[in-house]
Amino acid sequence: MAQKYATRAEDYSKWYNDLVARADLAEHSDVKGCMVIKPYGYAIWENMRDILDKMFKETGHSNAYFPLFIPKSYLSKEASHVDGFAKECAVVTHYRLKNDPNGGGVIVDPDAKLEEELIVRPTSETIIWNSYQKWIQSYRDLPILINQWANVVRWEMRTRLFLRTTEFLWQEGHTAHATKQEAIDETVQMLNVYTDFAENYMAVPVIRGRKTESERFAGADDTYCIEAMMQDGKALQAGTSHFLGQNFAKAFEVKFADKEGKLDYVWATSWGVSTRLMGALIMTHSDDEGLVLPPALAPIHVVIVPIHRTDEDLANITAAVEKLTVELKALNIRVKYDKDDQKRPGWKFAEYEAKGVPVRLAIGPRDLENGVVELARRDTKEKNSVPLEGLASYIDNLLKDIQDNLLVRAKKYRTENMREVNSYEDFKVQLEKEGGFFLAHWDGTKETEELVKQETKATIRCIPLDMPAEAGVCMVTGKPSAGRVVFAKAY
Amino acid sequence: MAQKYATRAEDYSKWYNDLVARADLAEHSDVKGCMVIKPYGYAIWENMRDILDKMFKETGHSNAYFPLFIPKSYLSKEASHVDGFAKECAVVTHYRLKNDPNGGGVIVDPDAKLEEELIVRPTSETIIWNSYQKWIQSYRDLPILINQWANVVRWEMRTRLFLRTTEFLWQEGHTAHATKQEAIDETVQMLNVYTDFAENYMAVPVIRGRKTESERFAGADDTYCIEAMMQDGKALQAGTSHFLGQNFAKAFEVKFADKEGKLDYVWATSWGVSTRLMGALIMTHSDDEGLVLPPALAPIHVVIVPIHRTDEDLANITAAVEKLTVELKALNIRVKYDKDDQKRPGWKFAEYEAKGVPVRLAIGPRDLENGVVELARRDTKEKNSVPLEGLASYIDNLLKDIQDNLLVRAKKYRTENMREVNSYEDFKVQLEKEGGFFLAHWDGTKETEELVKQETKATIRCIPLDMPAEAGVCMVTGKPSAGRVVFAKAY
Repeated sequence: MAQKYATRAEDYSKWYNDLVARADLAEHSDVKGCMVIKPYGYAIWENMRDILDKMFKETGHSNAYFPLFIPKSYLSKEASHVDGFAKECAVVTHYRLKNDPNGGGVIVDPDAKLEEELIVRPTSETIIWNSYQKWIQSYRDLPILINQWANVVRWEMRTRLFLRTTEFLWQEGHTAHATKQEAIDETVQMLNVYTDFAENYMAVPVIRGRKTESERFAGADDTYCIEAMMQDGKALQAGTSHFLGQNFAKAFEVKFADKEGKLDYVWATSWGVSTRLMGALIMTHSDDEGLVLPPALAPIHVVIVPIHRTDEDLANITAAVEKLTVELKALNIRVKYDKDDQKRPGWKFAEYEAKGVPVRLAIGPRDLENGVVELARRDTKEKNSVPLEGLASYIDNLLKDIQDNLLVRAKKYRTENMREVNSYEDFKVQLEKEGGFFLAHWDGTKETEELVKQETKATIRCIPLDMPAEAGVCMVTGKPSAGRVVFAKAY
Repeated sequence: MAQKYATRAEDYSKWYNDLVARADLAEHSDVKGCMVIKPYGYAIWENMRDILDKMFKETGHSNAYFPLFIPKSYLSKEASHVDGFAKECAVVTHYRLKNDPNGGGVIVDPDAKLEEELIVRPTSETIIWNSYQKWIQSYRDLPILINQWANVVRWEMRTRLFLRTTEFLWQEGHTAHATKQEAIDETVQMLNVYTDFAENYMAVPVIRGRKTESERFAGADDTYCIEAMMQDGKALQAGTSHFLGQNFAKAFEVKFADKEGKLDYVWATSWGVSTRLMGALIMTHSDDEGLVLPPALAPIHVVIVPIHRTDEDLANITAAVEKLTVELKALNIRVKYDKDDQKRPGWKFAEYEAKGVPVRLAIGPRDLENGVVELARRDTKEKNSVPLEGLASYIDNLLKDIQDNLLVRAKKYRTENMREVNSYEDFKVQLEKEGGFFLAHWDGTKETEELVKQETKATIRCIPLDMPAEAGVCMVTGKPSAGRVVFAKAY
């Protein structure tokens, strides 16, 4: 049945779309640009959310909730912010419908026009700093360490499930600090939380770095990011953490008195990851048979399929499965026993492969006699006969192996597809031929950055934090460069 | 410090508003009708959400996510639904702002007008059934048991924090079934889940019942509800579960083939609770000193306040507290040690009283010598000297006691303020004099229901499920009645 789906080699983009559909993760809705996240996709997102939420709380943050709507005038208060977000927002202008007097269903009631239009939040800095203005008087009120889980809307003309949708789900942290250094430390701390999450839960290796000025968040003094490499060699920005300086404090007049009573503007950060992470997860690990999930995020760790002809066989298998299930659950292993009679084992195998369940067990009467099961691991597709005795702890270890293997494999792929390049000609040739990430010298100007983007569609993904400083000359202009940056085409 | 706040007796409404502010639960935003849920308030809501979410999953439901926006035409597809919701919705008409050519900030770009306006969801039946239409072909696709945690918007002119806000947070379950009976069973099952949650976690006793036709959800064949009594004798609808019949299936043409291949419309339910529950929680238990929280939902179970003069005293107290904290945490007891030097113990006592922390411990050097602590319970305000030895398990039991006591106390209050009444004159007199719930006979007509509402502002809260059927005559018209219904003024 795999034939009808595109493979990665044939058509990477279609492979992705097919996979999201066959794994039953999400679908386009009839509302332009908005997606429906289906239960299996949402269960993965819930796992992401719960782990991140725990990490945020462990680093001292609390959740809160701010309004969906932002008065239009708030957006204008921070000059670069409005430039970045005004062009792509949903605008609420009225608050009532009424029956069409001409009998054409309901129409917008012209008498219910808002005095000031409301914007559906594209991000919440403005509405939150408007609150912080009331909450902060003195250094005793600082720091404020708040996170919000919310939906946001950015009007998009070309959308792709999870990667770019008009409405998406995300978290946005918004913190306020008494000193610049403390705000910078917070920005970096949250970048590190995202790095930890990406690598140790999603099994997605990332490059930590800073954005160039032209790629910064609208309203930030500095934007940090983590960049991941997809299997087509393109980059995906998986999370950002912004040092906002005093920009929003100045826009919303948020000052605090320090211990000596001296007034100063408050320092700020914001940081976020979104349902876009689902796209990164899918495109890092999955293969032509479907989704491949790291155990840390998989809604189902182990699926068990009985192979039987008679009811008696099934009863015996079920008894063994029930015992095993108890043992697995005691180890916090999420298990599903699929004894649906309407589906054949082969259909089930393909289905759970498509859904990326890390471990599959098949048990027939002969297996039971021999005290074994057939175990298939999703990541390597290896199959083995494994004793029932001690199986739960075998699987527990195996899940850890799979988690580790996915990260190792993704790192290996990234290493193979990331190269240093010293001439612009080589860069252009290799970018077209091989794709991937390029470590190259850049003269630090917007002009050169823009030129490369126009000529090659590659952008500077980040100025990496974890690479040795190595002076050189810009591959384009030959001007001096303090170190290599990461160029790539990106999602 | 309590003097500046209204007491319940003085001004119940102001008492509520003051309490929400002093317990730091929420505040009005500058966006008309929208609230900011502050971290402490949100932490209570998170506890509610997590418990409910677990109950939904244990009854077989999965979470999913559907778009925020609903095309205007969808609302019109179900005739009574559009009547119920079109009058109070936020309408998105444009998708872009632009710089005002006259220099007045940003304005709505007239070129970015949507072909069809979008409604910010007031509830999601229409957008979800539009999806179910694609998901359901045969009985094998049923049942669909989905829940969504989301924000919704219903334009409100008069708002009160948690009780009635333009935007609120809620969950909405939307299920699809092959048979009428299965859908009715689901409706009642979820009503029972809500009842269990209200009574055993919120410690709020509720009356399970059915709504009269005029109080039904717009689009439902039958609406079940739970009704709670607040301390001013008014009713608060704490949750609803709707049997939607085949109304939405017909509106969105959702048919399924049964085992014989015969096509029929699908049967539906929907059910929801919202941040309104926060209002019910507050108004059921709290007193003139502030919030009173049931332990099952309290973000902090135990607060510990050191009473000391010297650093050495503090060090000794802290050492004892650290040992105790380990023991408390091992019992899943949420503990906070407040050794903030900037605040005096008296200030802290009032603060944690206002925040409803169920148990407060105060420890001084003399206590330590004697191996005791001073323990104050929030619900009864009793204070006792309790041995440090075995304190963790003492507190564990005490928290269960407090949880039980709150429900018993609320039930007692409700019993004292719920009365049978047989004449309309008595009803009117007692409603004005005493308030509370009235069990009275009603002739089953809309006219009588409306008359009582107009004359007294009391409405029929529900036709109770758990009261013995007792035929009688309507207190207003003298016509026959099959049983008593619950009348009350309501939030």
